[in-house]
Parts: sequence; structure tokens; C-alpha cells
Amino acid sequence: MAKHVVVIGAVALGPKAASRLKRLAPDTEITMIDQANFISFGGCGIPYFVSGEVNSVDALRSTNYGAIRDPRYFIDRGINMLNETRVTAIDRAAHTVSTEHVRTGEKKTFSYDKLVLGTGSIPKMPPVEGRDLGNVTSATKLEAAQLVRDACASGKVASAVVVGGGFIGLEMAVALADMWGVKTSVVEFMDQLMPGVLSPVLADMVRHDLESNGVSVYTSEKVMRLEGKDGMVTRAVTDKRTLDADLVIFATGFAPNSALAQAAGLDIDPVTKGILVNDHMQTSDPDIYAGGDCVAVPNLISGKPACFQLGSIANRQGRVIGTNLAGGDATFKGAVGTWAVKLFKISACGVGLTPARAESAGFAPLAVNVEQLDRAHFYPEKEMMTLELVVDKNTRQMLGLQGVCTAGDALKARIDAAATMLQFGPRTLDDLSNAEAAYAPPFSGALDTLNVVANVADNVLAGRLVPLSSREFSNLWKERDVNHVYFVDSRPAAASEKTAAAYPGQWHALPLEALFADDAAEKLAALPKDRPMALICNTGLRSYEVMLKLRRAGFDNLSMALGGMQTMIKRGETF
Amino acid sequence: MAKHVVVIGAVALGPKAASRLKRLAPDTEITMIDQANFISFGGCGIPYFVSGEVNSVDALRSTNYGAIRDPRYFIDRGINMLNETRVTAIDRAAHTVSTEHVRTGEKKTFSYDKLVLGTGSIPKMPPVEGRDLGNVTSATKLEAAQLVRDACASGKVASAVVVGGGFIGLEMAVALADMWGVKTSVVEFMDQLMPGVLSPVLADMVRHDLESNGVSVYTSEKVMRLEGKDGMVTRAVTDKRTLDADLVIFATGFAPNSALAQAAGLDIDPVTKGILVNDHMQTSDPDIYAGGDCVAVPNLISGKPACFQLGSIANRQGRVIGTNLAGGDATFKGAVGTWAVKLFKISACGVGLTPARAESAGFAPLAVNVEQLDRAHFYPEKEMMTLELVVDKNTRQMLGLQGVCTAGDALKARIDAAATMLQFGPRTLDDLSNAEAAYAPPFSGALDTLNVVANVADNVLAGRLVPLSSREFSNLWKERDVNHVYFVDSRPAAASEKTAAAYPGQWHALPLEALFADDAAEKLAALPKDRPMALICNTGLRSYEVMLKLRRAGFDNLSMALGGMQTMIKRGETF
Repeated sequence: MAKHVVVIGAVALGPKAASRLKRLAPDTEITMIDQANFISFGGCGIPYFVSGEVNSVDALRSTNYGAIRDPRYFIDRGINMLNETRVTAIDRAAHTVSTEHVRTGEKKTFSYDKLVLGTGSIPKMPPVEGRDLGNVTSATKLEAAQLVRDACASGKVASAVVVGGGFIGLEMAVALADMWGVKTSVVEFMDQLMPGVLSPVLADMVRHDLESNGVSVYTSEKVMRLEGKDGMVTRAVTDKRTLDADLVIFATGFAPNSALAQAAGLDIDPVTKGILVNDHMQTSDPDIYAGGDCVAVPNLISGKPACFQLGSIANRQGRVIGTNLAGGDATFKGAVGTWAVKLFKISACGVGLTPARAESAGFAPLAVNVEQLDRAHFYPEKEMMTLELVVDKNTRQMLGLQGVCTAGDALKARIDAAATMLQFGPRTLDDLSNAEAAYAPPFSGALDTLNVVANVADNVLAGRLVPLSSREFSNLWKERDVNHVYFVDSRPAAASEKTAAAYPGQWHALPLEALFADDAAEKLAALPKDRPMALICNTGLRSYEVMLKLRRAGFDNLSMALGGMQTMIKRGETF
Repeated sequence: MAKHVVVIGAVALGPKAASRLKRLAPDTEITMIDQANFISFGGCGIPYFVSGEVNSVDALRSTNYGAIRDPRYFIDRGINMLNETRVTAIDRAAHTVSTEHVRTGEKKTFSYDKLVLGTGSIPKMPPVEGRDLGNVTSATKLEAAQLVRDACASGKVASAVVVGGGFIGLEMAVALADMWGVKTSVVEFMDQLMPGVLSPVLADMVRHDLESNGVSVYTSEKVMRLEGKDGMVTRAVTDKRTLDADLVIFATGFAPNSALAQAAGLDIDPVTKGILVNDHMQTSDPDIYAGGDCVAVPNLISGKPACFQLGSIANRQGRVIGTNLAGGDATFKGAVGTWAVKLFKISACGVGLTPARAESAGFAPLAVNVEQLDRAHFYPEKEMMTLELVVDKNTRQMLGLQGVCTAGDALKARIDAAATMLQFGPRTLDDLSNAEAAYAPPFSGALDTLNVVANVADNVLAGRLVPLSSREFSNLWKERDVNHVYFVDSRPAAASEKTAAAYPGQWHALPLEALFADDAAEKLAALPKDRPMALICNTGLRSYEVMLKLRRAGFDNLSMALGGMQTMIKRGETF
């Protein structure tokens, strides 16, 4: 059992490891060191502090039972807590760390038997001219959050630019626009929001939610420089436009803070720059543990090292480290990359690989999305849920599941069920087709959306259902003058005929019911056999039936829009 | 590939199997037979039809896209649908089934290449005198539901008795009391509500929700006879009291309807009476498939055959049968027993074994419950969630997880994550401790309740946390005059001192904070070393810290209330 343990970093991983160790082995001498003043805070709560939903900084650094985790909290519990203290070097041979007080400059050296690195991450700030202007900030420190909130509360922020369309950027955009009424723009370098975690179709839904709530979204666009006046930012200039900006927030990702580890000669993953650890959370030096935002652990789906920078992961890794330091045998085998974000009306949530990520990991991905109510269709209160499944075409392996829904918890239920399948996998789409989730009409349909999305993938792989992504259908429609696609709408007559009337000769109503009517043969005979046909209905259920019927009738150039009009509407497309 | 397939039963399994088969192998000749007039309906929606939340019977027998599944629906799709037709016998040697029309008495014989049994279940009606009186019914047929709803709508039902405190009984009680204002009593033969799916502690919460919303609950009580006037029921007489009753609903469980199968010599599980099937859903006769309420499949945790009578299971089994009949190779390996129910303010949801069921399956169960918010504690909207985990003490195997929360979907998310772990298990509590669920402050705490409940079980198995169930603590408190237990309340001073003042000399305030104060040693010295101490706080977090501190100070007869005051409050206990 360890005698003296030094913990570097006191945000999430460090305090968890230290507290767990102290409970298991109270005689251990523990020194925890952090360069900041505020320690042990919930960084993921910053957007809610900025919005004002969370009243005070103290709420973000209090326990579930209301105690404030300031240095005194840890000292009371027998942990030697040093804040405002920077670790300048680790001497592995001597088993010491050197420190310097950030205000007084006082230098000290601490010896350790075991060392824990919870050094976190640092915002990736692109080298943009003007980034040192006032009211330009990242959004990871409590101090920065206070700055943003004060700026908004002062009424001096009329417009803001958020650079980066990932979770944190979007959470900040929602906080600014929704709670403070700031005219907010999001500028994202990639060609969609939430790249890497959402497919293009679902990213369209996120964009539509933001845009319909007053946030401007500019993708495939790069901030070139910031301009200011009297030292304060006033404008952000992109490669395409100039945006007014009294506030600029960079949410352009985080790099593992692995400099100390690297200087000490520990193994670092060359791609992610995260500190490499084994499944006991030990670095290449068995006396040094590491966890949280600064490490790379296996992505359990791709098998490759990846950085999962979430408070949830850090807490669980911290517990594993605490247990192992106390002589236990706990493991952390990797992660599958679950995430969730609440925007304006919708939430988005996911796990695993997107089609693009799957492809670069060497898989042959198929992505299919469905729209289905989150409850029994006859239950009075219900919401339409989008789920998109990514599977490998050759092995049928489940690779990822992402979703969008106004009912965030109901969405989370589906994602989490898939997440534990993936975590303790591998699993196939056939497993998902038969995944057992709690059923009663106020909670789901008899065939859960989880099962249905797997069944759709099965039908696609079997060649029964020829899919068009919602984007592909939209593009076909836009190019209808040149591609000669015959568009068939199988919604009930009232809906399909109304749209057909708006686009005479281009959009064709063929309600599913018509194929069971007495004149069905006539209806079929009137369809062109020599043109590709693109089918659509409300969610896809009717189109699939129509597709099977038409194929039996000798039509073979058929495809259908996944998620039908419901996916279109969520993407902001109208017909 | 099958030439002629006969399907007996057209509620959930049959239609699913037939429709799937027809899509995969459209040339198959399919005859589907059901004795009822209304077919293919969502029986699980009946309580919502009774309550009036679902407007019409047709809503329960329509597809997700609004088509009504009457016989015509199936005939349109090439399935020879015969309703109001009873199958009287199966001749396996001749490969025929004999039928009789329920109204005309017309007899027919159908030959089959493959046969599907989806004969469902029949309500277990105890042989109670008076059960043939008017307004005495079960609640499984649409016709019975219509009767109940008409009786309520007529205003002639002032009081009702529901016999049976399982899901359906409670859903019906909620429908009657909440929507129709009927004075409703639930009589349950066992000593708790929801026996077999909830532990006593969580069952107390369900009882409290019902009672605080005007439903009377009588457990350990048996309906002996029903009395009536003019042929209509007026009273239910139990072994303890007489209850007014203008309506009596029996919700006393369902027996697999396996009579036809048994008469045909198919293998039947002697315990459950369900038809035995292999993982392809074939009975002991490979030409006969069966699924839904009438079969027994492995409980994947206990390994024993069990009947899982839910529309969700039937639909998934139906798809497997349809696939296999079309020459595919789909399997259904068993189930883990997920369930969910929405009551008045709370929902309850669970998976796997209760402590009692685990014990009778040969495990050595430990059950622990926690109370934790469903979101980050600093997030403005949040609900307290109860989760109870059942694990095997020797192997640490996860056996079950049940919960209660006002936020039903948030609860379902936790249960479903555990459900897929169990389904594709076995898994241990250490796996659950590290289960990865989607995290962001609007969706969970950084350590999800799923992880926390596993950590508590870990602490109990390690002997660090000596638990009292909430019921055990209540009982100790009730017997405080004889057991000399010293009760310690570690909530903040305001709360603990108020309760202590109400019970001077019996209830002792010892806020966690006091143990870090300057006079902590004095406080400790004042505690009795010779008496057992029972600790409590708001949720258990503080008690655990106090327990560790007191143990270090030499106290060794310590135990603490799991879930603290929050579990007490949900159980309706006040101090």
C-alpha cells in the first residue's frame, strides 16, 4: 500500500482518486496540487452558469449534499491540498515533483511513492490575430465563465460569435441567445455542426433547431481575424463575411495537457497527444497513474487510442485509480464515446462512430435513420424521435447510434441501452434488433425504436429496402429537371395530393391505400417503368410497403427517403 | 421455403410473424385464424382506453401510420385472415388444424406445412363466489375494456375494487381513480404491491403514491366472495373487510394459453405451463413455431424457463418466426424481464430479479438502494431517483435493477442500460460501476446513479458500508424503547436538530460538518460506545462519511439507512 501519494490536478479526476484512496486507506498521506484558485468544479456546468440557470460558481464546486469543495474541504478530510501551485517538473528517478506557487513564486519539492496525473486539457486556440482583445475567451475556466456572464449581465453584449460548432460551442450559443438575448453566430470550420459525433443528416437537424431560434450558423467557414476598439473585440472576420461581435468564445476543442508527462519521458500517444495508460490507469511508469482529459484510452469500437474528455469518464477513472492505489485491482478498459447535449427545443445524444469516423477506422459503414414516436402511437403525449444506426456492411457489427428528439431523456434511454451493448460488445445489428428495453405504452412502442432502426438496417443489407438519406432525396429533388427522377408520395391522400398539386407533373401522389383499391392495377400501369423512382411518405413505413409492392409489380429502379417527411421537417426542408 | 403457413392467434405475435413472412417470401400462402372479432390490437393500451386517454378502440388496433388492422387490412396484404374462428384441434401427423366458426358453428380443416401458435394467455380468475355478477371482469379484451369504460362513463360506478396489485391492476386503479374519480381499492394477496418485480422498499413507494392519490391499498388480503344486487356486483368481501364495489376488475395474472399445444402433445414447461421452444422459436415439433404470451423462454439471468407476457416480446419473437419461416436464421435466446409502469406521480421500472426471486433461483442476493438526482445537482430542473441493485454476494454478478422516479424516461434510461448488460451478460457490479452512459448536466450527474448504486454495493460487500434497508431502519426506530439503538442524524444542523428536538434523547443530531469542527473530539467523546448506532442523513452520502469517521474513532457497531430520508419520504414515513 502506498505511503505518500501526490496528485497533480484537482478538478475531477484528482479529487475523485484522492477521496477514494483516503476512504479505502485512511493512513495514506496524500498531497493534491492544482495551479488554479478554484478547484474541484464541474466544468461541464459552465454553460449553465453563463446562462444564469446556475446561480453561483459555488454551485459548480459543491458536493451532491451541498458542501463546497474548496481547499478546506479536502484538508478536513486529511488531504494536503495546495491550490495556486504549479508543478514545474517530475523527477521519476528521484520520485519527486517540483512546484512553484503561482503568486509568491515559492518553490518546493515533494517526494512521492505513487503519483497521479490529472492535468486535464487545454483549449485549442487557433492562432487568430486579435485573440488577445478584451471579451475574447475560451470557456473552460470558472474565471472565464464569470467574465462572459458579467459581460452579458452588463448589457454591453449585443452580438457574440462562438467559434466551433461542437457540444460546448453549441451549449454556449444556446446560453447566450436563449437566456441573454444576444444575437449569436456559430462559425464552424468543418462542413457541418458537431462533426465527428453526428452524421450530416442529424447535424442538419441541430442546425435547424439553432437557426429557428435565432442563432446564425456558418459552416465550412473560418475565422481569419478579430478586430477591436479600445482593446475590446468588436468584429470577427471570416473568410466569407464580417460579423459584429462584442464577445468571442473559442470552443475549438481541447488538447490533452500532457506536457509534464512528456517532459518526464512517459509514453504519449503520437496521434492524440494523450498520455498512454494501461487498463489499471498506469502510465508507462508503473508508479505514475493518469486519467481524465489528459489521457488516451482505447476506443472500444475502433480499438484505437482516443481522448474522451468528459467529467463522467474522469470520475470513473478517478475511482479506479483510488482503488488501485489502495491495493485493489480495478480496471478501466476504454470507452465508447457517449455524449449528450440539450439545445433549444431538441436534444441530441449518441454513442460510438459516425459513418465518417467508421470509414476512417477501416469499417464499411452503412447508416440508416428512422423516425418513430417515443411512446405507443396511441398514447396521448409523445414526440417523434430520430435514431441513426451505423453498422458495418460486411460483419453487421454495431458501430454507433445517434439521435435527435425533443424528449431528451427518452432519447438518452435508447442511446444508453446501445452504449452498454457497445461497451461490453462487440454486438451485431441482430442483437440490437432483439435488444430488450422496458416497455409500457407511456414509455415506448411495442417494437422500440432501437429495434426498428436495426430492422431497417437489416432490410437495407438484404436489398429489400433501397435507402436514400434525407439529404440525398433533397438533392435529387433539387436536380429534378435534369435527373428525370419520378417522385412518389405515399402519404394519405390529403397530404400527398396537396403537395402534388403544388408541383404538378413533378411530385406524384400515390397513397399506400390506393394500391389496395379496386383500381390498383390501373394506378400501377400509369407509373413509368423507365424512370428511377424516389419514394417518400411520413416516416418511411408506407414507402417501404410501396417499394415492396412496386418491386413485385416489376419496377426495379426504386429508392426511398429514410425518415420520410419527418426527417425533412426536422432538417428544415419544406415542400 | 414454406408453402402454406397457418397462424393461430392474431393479436401481436401472429400478425407480426405473418406480415414479416409475407414481406420476405410473398409467395407463401398464409392463413391466420383468431377466435375474436377484434384482432391485432395493443392489449397493453387497454388501461389508457379505460381512462379515456385513448379515444377509441380503433386507436389500439391501428398501425403507426394510422391504418386500422381489421381483417381487411391483412387480406389486402395477401394474408387469408379468418376472425371469429376457433381452432379446435391440431393434427400433427396429418399437418392439419380443425376450426369452428364461433357464431355459425361452421367447421373447416386447413392443412399446413408450418404452423405458428400465438394463442396468448388467459386471465387467471380465482374461483371466487359471485364472479359471474355484472360489472365483474378481467381487463384483457377490448370488449371488457369497453364495458369498464361505459360503466364509468355512465356515472354508475362510485367505487371499484381491483383484485391484484401487479402492473395491470395498478394501471387500471390509476385509470379509475385519476380519470373517472372512482373510489378505488386494490386488494393484493401477497404482502406487498408488485410482488416479484419490486423489492419491499420500492413497493412501499408505489403504495405511497397510490395512497396519497386516494387509492386504498390492502396487501396480505384475499377477496373471499363478491356480493351483488339485481345481478350486478355491489360489494367485495375480503378476509378482513367488506368493500363497496360497483365494479370489480380481476388483474390476477395470466396463464399461458397452451391447451391446444398440450392436446397436440407438444412439450410444455411443467412449472409455468408455457409451451417450450428452442432459440428459433420452434416447439418440440419442428414444423410448429410458437411465441408470445403462450410460450416459456429462458430467463437469461436464472436460466429457468419463464413467461414474459409483453407486447414488446411478442413482436420481437414474431419477427424471428417470420424470418425463420422464410428460410432465415434468426434467434431469440431468452429475456431478462424488463418492465415499466406509470402510476400517479411516479413511474416504476425494472429488469431482472428481485432479492426474493434471486434467492429462490439459488443466488445469495444483496440489495442496495440509492437516492440521487437524475441530473447534475446544480442543474435547475431535477428529480430524485431511487435505484435498487440486486447482486450476488459471492460472485458479484448483477442480478437485477429496479427503480422509482417521477421522471419516468430518465428512470427508463438507467434500467435499459442495465437491461442490455444483463441480456448480453453475465456482468458484475464492477461492470456496472464503470458502465458508460451519455453524460451532460441536463441528463445526469458526472457519476451516473447507475455507477453510484454499483459503488454502494461494492462498499457494502467490502464491509465499509453496513447497510440498513429503509424498512429495517423504520423498524429499529419503532422499537427504540426496547432495542437501545442510538439514532444519529447527519443532515445539516437545521434539519437534524429540528428532528432531534422533536424526539429528545432519542434522535441525535450530528451534522457531518460537526466532525470537522474544532470541538469534533468532544462531540465524538459524547457518543455512547456501548450502544448500536443507526445513522441516517438525506440520501446516505453524509452517513457514509460519518460511518467511516466513527469507525476510525473506535466505534464498531454502526449501520446506516440506505437512501436516507429521501427513501423514507418516498415510502411515506415521517419523523
